[in-house]
Parts: sequence; C-alpha cells; structure tokens
Amino acid sequence: MKLVRTIDELTHIVKAWRSEGKIIGLVPTMGWFHQGHLSLMEMARGRADKVVVSLFINPIQFGLGEDLSTYPYDLDRDMQLAEKAGVDLLFAPAAEDIYPVGFQTAVSVKNLTQGLCGASRPDHFGGVATVVAKLFNMVQPHLAIFGEKDYQQLAVIRQMVRDLNFNLEIFGHPIVRESDGLAMSSRNSYLNKEERRHALCLHRSIQYAKEMVEKAGPKLPVVKLTDEVKRIINTTPGCAVDYVEVVDKDTLLPSEYVEKNSMMALAVKINDRVRLIDNTRLDLKESVVPDNK
Amino acid sequence: MKLVRTIDELTHIVKAWRSEGKIIGLVPTMGWFHQGHLSLMEMARGRADKVVVSLFINPIQFGLGEDLSTYPYDLDRDMQLAEKAGVDLLFAPAAEDIYPVGFQTAVSVKNLTQGLCGASRPDHFGGVATVVAKLFNMVQPHLAIFGEKDYQQLAVIRQMVRDLNFNLEIFGHPIVRESDGLAMSSRNSYLNKEERRHALCLHRSIQYAKEMVEKAGPKLPVVKLTDEVKRIINTTPGCAVDYVEVVDKDTLLPSEYVEKNSMMALAVKINDRVRLIDNTRLDLKESVVPDNK
Repeated sequence: MKLVRTIDELTHIVKAWRSEGKIIGLVPTMGWFHQGHLSLMEMARGRADKVVVSLFINPIQFGLGEDLSTYPYDLDRDMQLAEKAGVDLLFAPAAEDIYPVGFQTAVSVKNLTQGLCGASRPDHFGGVATVVAKLFNMVQPHLAIFGEKDYQQLAVIRQMVRDLNFNLEIFGHPIVRESDGLAMSSRNSYLNKEERRHALCLHRSIQYAKEMVEKAGPKLPVVKLTDEVKRIINTTPGCAVDYVEVVDKDTLLPSEYVEKNSMMALAVKINDRVRLIDNTRLDLKESVVPDNK
Repeated sequence: MKLVRTIDELTHIVKAWRSEGKIIGLVPTMGWFHQGHLSLMEMARGRADKVVVSLFINPIQFGLGEDLSTYPYDLDRDMQLAEKAGVDLLFAPAAEDIYPVGFQTAVSVKNLTQGLCGASRPDHFGGVATVVAKLFNMVQPHLAIFGEKDYQQLAVIRQMVRDLNFNLEIFGHPIVRESDGLAMSSRNSYLNKEERRHALCLHRSIQYAKEMVEKAGPKLPVVKLTDEVKRIINTTPGCAVDYVEVVDKDTLLPSEYVEKNSMMALAVKINDRVRLIDNTRLDLKESVVPDNK
C-alpha cells in the first residue's frame, strides 16, 4: 500500500491507473478505522481494481464547539489496518493543501440538509459536500462507497452526484454494529465504560421501533412511535435526545404515519459531550437495505 | 459537426474520445454567436483535438426582471456558424435535463463575487459556477475557454477550478471588439441604431482611462479616474452607470490608486433596458492581456 500526502502525487498515480483502464474505487474517511470502515474498503476491493482510501479530518464540516480538536487520529495504526484490508493507496493530505489560502468555493445541497443532523449542524453537510466534490475531482474514481450510518450524508452525496453530473457510481454500505448492537463509529472511542453501556439506548430504540411497527401494522402515527423512543433515550442515565424522526428514505421529509419508505433516524447526546447517531428502515426486518440508485 | 441534445449521448461521445486519447476543448456559451464566440472556438480548435461548444441559456444565472425570456436564440443560425468554425460537437440540452425536478445543489464562490457585477446581480455567479461545474463533469474537457469580456466570470471559474480541484486548464480569450470599439456581446442585438451609437461610451471610457493613466503616471487616485469616466457615461444620452471600478486583476478588490495589477471594469445601463459591460487592464497598452494561470 502506498501512503500519499500530496495532491500532485495522487493525481499522478490515479491518472496512470485510469490510462491503464483500472477501475478506481474511493472510500472517503476521517480515519481512526473500525470494522465499519474496513467493510467499506472490502466492498471497494470487490468492485474496483484499485482502492483509494482518503483520510482527512475535514475542518469545514465541524461546527464551533464540536470535536474537531479531539477527533481521534493515529496514522500508523490506520496505515496498518488499511494495508491489511487490501487498500492500494491511502491519501492523507494536509489541511493547508486541501484549503489553501484564498480558498472560497462551497458546494451546498439545499433541501436534504434542512432536517435531521442538518438542523443542529447547519454548516456540516456543506463542508461534507465540498470536500467530497474535491476528492471526486482529485481521485477521479469510478465508484465511491459511504456507510449508511451517516444516512443523511449518503443521501446528500447521491444528490450532489446527480445534480452536478459527477461521472461515478455511489454505493451505500449497511451499518456495521458491535456484537451488542452499537453502531460502529470513531466517536465511540470518546465513551467511558459506563457511557458505552448507556449508548446502547440507540440500538434499543431501533429494536423497539421495529417491533412496534411490526405489531401496529399500517398507519402507525409517527408521533406515537417517536414519543416512546424519546422516552427510552431520555430515561437512560446521561442520555438526551437531539432528534428522533421518521422520514421518507429518499426526500428525508418527516412523515405523519409510518409508511412503505419510512426510516427512523436519531441523534443522542451522551453526557452532553458525545453525540452519536443511528438509523433504521422501518418497513423491513433488516436494519438498512442498500439502495444504490 | 454533431448536434447533441441529451446528456447521455454527450457522455457517450466524450467517453469514446477520451479513451482514444483525444484532447477535448470546451467553449461554454449561451448562443447567438458573434465573432467573440467564434474566436473562442478558433482558440479551442488550436489547442484541442475535439472542440465541444455548449449552447445553453442558463436560467439560474438570470435574476428576476433580467432578460432570460428575451435572450436571443436561433439554433439553426448558431449551428451553421459553429460548423464553419470547425466545432466537432454542439451540445444544446433542454433546461429540464440540466435542472430536473428535485435539483437542489449549488456551487458558490464567495469573495470574488461580492463586487462588480456580483453587487447588482447577487445570484448570477452562483448560477454560472453551478452550470459550469456541471458542464465540466459532463464534457470532461482537458481545457475550457472563456472570454475576458466577462472578466469576473473568468476569475470565478478559475477560482472554482482551483478550489474544487477540477482537472482541466482554463484559458481566457481577449475581448473581441467591433471596428468602432464596442465589445462584442449577444446583448448588443437589443440595441437600436441610436442606442448602438451611444453604447460607444463604454469604449470611449476605456480609451479615456488608459490615456489618463499614461499621462498621470504612478499614484493616480482611482476616484479621480472613475469620476471622469462616470461623467463620460452619464452625460451620454440614455446611458447610466451601473458601476465603474478599478480593482486588482486577481482579487477583484477595489484599489485606492491605479497600480501595477489594476484593471477597470464597468457596467452601463442603456435606456434602463440593456446592460452592457466592458473592462480593460490599466497598466498596459493592450486592452486585456491573457493570463492563463
């Protein structure tokens, strides 16, 4: 595996791969790899000749007071994990190369970013869309893979690709969970032992919601469901709801009743310090089903 | 020359060209070709194996009350002119294919769009940047050519390319003028005979400014220059200044004194109906010198 730190070197390598007819798969990450990331890399491995993983803690997607300065980072550790996962190129650029002096361009996706995480993180998805557009142009991949834990992010990227006519295919990878159900996240590393236990209220909420939908059948009012889920979370020590919403899986607009295309998304603050998210389709037994269109 | 109306057909053709190793040059236009456009096509012809010209009257770059509905359009006429200019592919898509239902992504360039035309046309350059980003992704050109009459547009595109890491080269083409000095523009077709004569106040302003700078030498206060130019324009029948500014050619920020990198840009409304723009470098005898970095 090759570690690449500069845009010039990256461009040089992917251009050669392109001209050799290689299919290039990109997995954009912020590092501190866990099994979720490794599964995305594995998926890329299966669909591309060359797998590029970007590792960049993107400052412009963090808001004021968020965890930019404490976000976990260990390049040596991540290099070893990526190498084992069969990655061909790990691209870990410096922030000043991605955002040089004078940088002033933004990509924004309007409707899909209004609710859910966008409501409490107003600049987040603009920062994500901008850096991902840059990565697409730098890496020129044939396909890119994103995790469905960040469901709204995936929807935003799909929309951006469609709207700006990026010439690549986007794949979502189902949420990867710990054995006890906690969705894998680099931010889980912020949790102490007790918080880690309490964080299970997210997965418990999801299981509860799926059971409730199954029992209730059609026309379950969303508010009945989300009230129960909010109660589960807010009665867990240290846990507070940021949002619990049932939305259409494509438009991300709130639903009044649980419907065929409904999904539930939630964000929980633990001890007002760690913010975790999770989501599930509500019309199916599986947590989230890949939807590659 | 091939006329292409759909994105799919375009993508298909340029992909084949790419794989044959052809260098693709793009000239984005809104049609109603004049010698200015034809010179851009000629420049592309000299630098690329395949010349793609897009003809699309981009609705999102027009503001309320602007001339979207009256913008001149004649596809047959433009096809003949493009064919004669040696264009390989004329891409004339439908608005609903460029902006399908649900379209919601925008590209914006911040600092460079604050002044000059951006001040009176607040959404204009966002619309330009968005459609040009789309064209770059659709056409995948190695180079693209823009006229320097729309100087701020050219600066915005260069900045977007740099900031979003688009993998192509941007060239500016010097302003092409009628024999009496009027900068060529599709909007000149709006002028009646009398207005056409009065519109020469733009070029007269530019000549006056260059002479004044030459005579005055260094440290000419900008306000002294622009006051004179505004007087020339506002005393021409039917003509009113939208703006007259001397700015740095790279940052487009206003200057206090005429300096090495100064340029003058102006916009004039004729009979409150037709808005024309023009510009010139002030430190040189030539009107505008190509700057391809």
